[in-house]
Amino acid sequence: MDNFIYSIPTTAYFGKGQITILGAAIKAYGGSKVLLAYGGGSVQKNGIYHVILDQFAKAGLAHVELSGIRPNPRVESVEEGISIYREKGCDFILAVGGGSTLDACKAIAAGVKYNGPVTDLFVNETGLSPISVAAPLATILTMAGTGSEMDMGAVITVGDDHKKEVILHPLVNPKFSILDPEYTYTVPEYHSMAGVADILCHLMEQYFTPDVNAKVQDRMNEGVMKAVLEEAPKILADPRDYDARANIMWASSMALAGFQFLLGKPMFAFPLHGLGHELYSMYDMTHGVTLALLTPAWIRHTMRTAPEHLPIFARFARNVFDIREEDDGKAAEKGVGKLQAFYAAIKMPANLREAGVKEKDLEGIAKKAVERGNLGILTSIGRQEALAIMRDAF
Amino acid sequence: MDNFIYSIPTTAYFGKGQITILGAAIKAYGGSKVLLAYGGGSVQKNGIYHVILDQFAKAGLAHVELSGIRPNPRVESVEEGISIYREKGCDFILAVGGGSTLDACKAIAAGVKYNGPVTDLFVNETGLSPISVAAPLATILTMAGTGSEMDMGAVITVGDDHKKEVILHPLVNPKFSILDPEYTYTVPEYHSMAGVADILCHLMEQYFTPDVNAKVQDRMNEGVMKAVLEEAPKILADPRDYDARANIMWASSMALAGFQFLLGKPMFAFPLHGLGHELYSMYDMTHGVTLALLTPAWIRHTMRTAPEHLPIFARFARNVFDIREEDDGKAAEKGVGKLQAFYAAIKMPANLREAGVKEKDLEGIAKKAVERGNLGILTSIGRQEALAIMRDAF
Repeated sequence: MDNFIYSIPTTAYFGKGQITILGAAIKAYGGSKVLLAYGGGSVQKNGIYHVILDQFAKAGLAHVELSGIRPNPRVESVEEGISIYREKGCDFILAVGGGSTLDACKAIAAGVKYNGPVTDLFVNETGLSPISVAAPLATILTMAGTGSEMDMGAVITVGDDHKKEVILHPLVNPKFSILDPEYTYTVPEYHSMAGVADILCHLMEQYFTPDVNAKVQDRMNEGVMKAVLEEAPKILADPRDYDARANIMWASSMALAGFQFLLGKPMFAFPLHGLGHELYSMYDMTHGVTLALLTPAWIRHTMRTAPEHLPIFARFARNVFDIREEDDGKAAEKGVGKLQAFYAAIKMPANLREAGVKEKDLEGIAKKAVERGNLGILTSIGRQEALAIMRDAF
Repeated sequence: MDNFIYSIPTTAYFGKGQITILGAAIKAYGGSKVLLAYGGGSVQKNGIYHVILDQFAKAGLAHVELSGIRPNPRVESVEEGISIYREKGCDFILAVGGGSTLDACKAIAAGVKYNGPVTDLFVNETGLSPISVAAPLATILTMAGTGSEMDMGAVITVGDDHKKEVILHPLVNPKFSILDPEYTYTVPEYHSMAGVADILCHLMEQYFTPDVNAKVQDRMNEGVMKAVLEEAPKILADPRDYDARANIMWASSMALAGFQFLLGKPMFAFPLHGLGHELYSMYDMTHGVTLALLTPAWIRHTMRTAPEHLPIFARFARNVFDIREEDDGKAAEKGVGKLQAFYAAIKMPANLREAGVKEKDLEGIAKKAVERGNLGILTSIGRQEALAIMRDAF
């Protein structure tokens, strides 16, 4: 096991009705005028918006608004938020929504304290963003999946070619996140299940690394994966199943809290996210859906090209899917089969073609995915490998 | 799943050589004169003491010492520490050792900021200690087991009858803990394995609660239990097996970090610790050993007297020990058998008699164990039940 630092800067207030702590918690972090940021109109339709304004009024908090943050949030939204925060003299940021709103607000939190373009704050060669101070940020999650509510990362889209840039720094971790599973009752089935695929992928990206016997981390990770596999189908059966929504929401947070399942392991790679980003940039696909499609193809590609890693996939099959099979190759193959069956059960598209991807675009996507360097950790994924994986998933 | 608050105030610096962050980390919390607290001479014998003094010298930190903190730390040690801290004008506390030293230092951290006897700060009817401020505390762990390095609790012994009192408050969580598995290489086998039994018991005390489908928490908990079962025997085979020591140390911390496996579940009860405290108070037994002896007896008692809880013990057997058995009663019985076999494999005594307990004392111990109220959560453990469990374990 490698050395690591475990730090969880975000407090989670989990459960129904936790919104009542909002005013006091914001004031505890010195907030008096809040930049309230959200995406489309869903927070107004489902009533959360008015509940928040009530809490602000009770606590005597002023606020201004930034609305219309879109999926795959763009740097222009971030810049707009920075301007509003400064012009209106805000001192706290509250992000209400899913990962896109949260990510935009992390960039705003860093940007408002930086005297220069926010694009300077993207991850550099140190592996972190050059951030030395950030405005206090809290979140109210309305959709489970990205884990942004408990982590230090944000993905921001830049330019006409939809380039994905990353903000990564502990200072942008939310101070607190309000996680009320009831707020996810109205998330449409497709997006709920895409969130499930995203959670599973976060867990797998931390799991499929060279084995350094970080056993506590891996066994905990397997436990969360099993819980996700058990609970997600219950949401399909009843979108208002509180415990199922609660488990999926908590799995989302646990998956990325302090990157706890990656601690002590070799490195931060997330190759599936690297490939997936390019797909959903080009087609405006839902993030989690791309991951559900790419993961089985990536596993099979790795099994085929780097059979020395078969034991890791066999362990996954045995410990997560309870496969009883002595032979590593057969066990691994059965595991990836079970994983694909799970994606089918939660109604993910069968392949990239069904999800709207055009075969003629694959070469360009593969090229773009690796333009900043090869992806991967078990194997190195260059342009040819990226293409092969996407063809497998096609 | 019930509502909960997840908060992990302690940063862990995990791995070999992490001691080099000591000076900078203490200074980051405003420390300039450190109360350095430890137990017997082992920190001097194994060299850690001199490494710490080197780090102090490099960072320009002054220090004074409190040594001789004994297992089952007494309130008199705490009072001595409070006096030294105040007289010498300290501003930071560094606990070096196992759970006893850490627990004493938590009480000191609260006591130095309180204008009155430290005994006022024991847990009251609110379920927490009445603490509003505490001195900054850090820990260097030299023995894995109690989890005190990552939690908000401390057990202090008071009076001639060795009464156990509890300090419980997030303000006494260490600011940071240095967890270097190499520091545990020299812990004798018996105490290493008693620590393993303590870790397992912390996990089981959070696991054996009425089922509220807190599945993410339970599955993660099962994962840590499995890791402990796999790794502990490797320490017996080779006390310098780094990865085994690392996994057991991290399991100790994860087991109690924010009581994360109890979150969303009905209540805080820890009946096995309640019973165990009285045994090791009377006989100066090692804490973890009492737990290893009581747990199987408690499980069988609960299975017998409250068969409605059989499914929980059956789940434990299936998910932690991989028991393939349809019938809940048979599965549960096989699980407790496997648990006992594990305790035997890590060389715990076979029963209370072998551990030195006298049969004639059992009635008195049972009476004392429940004098502040019945114990338990799956069932209520009064005097008769406590006696029955101890007789089973005898």
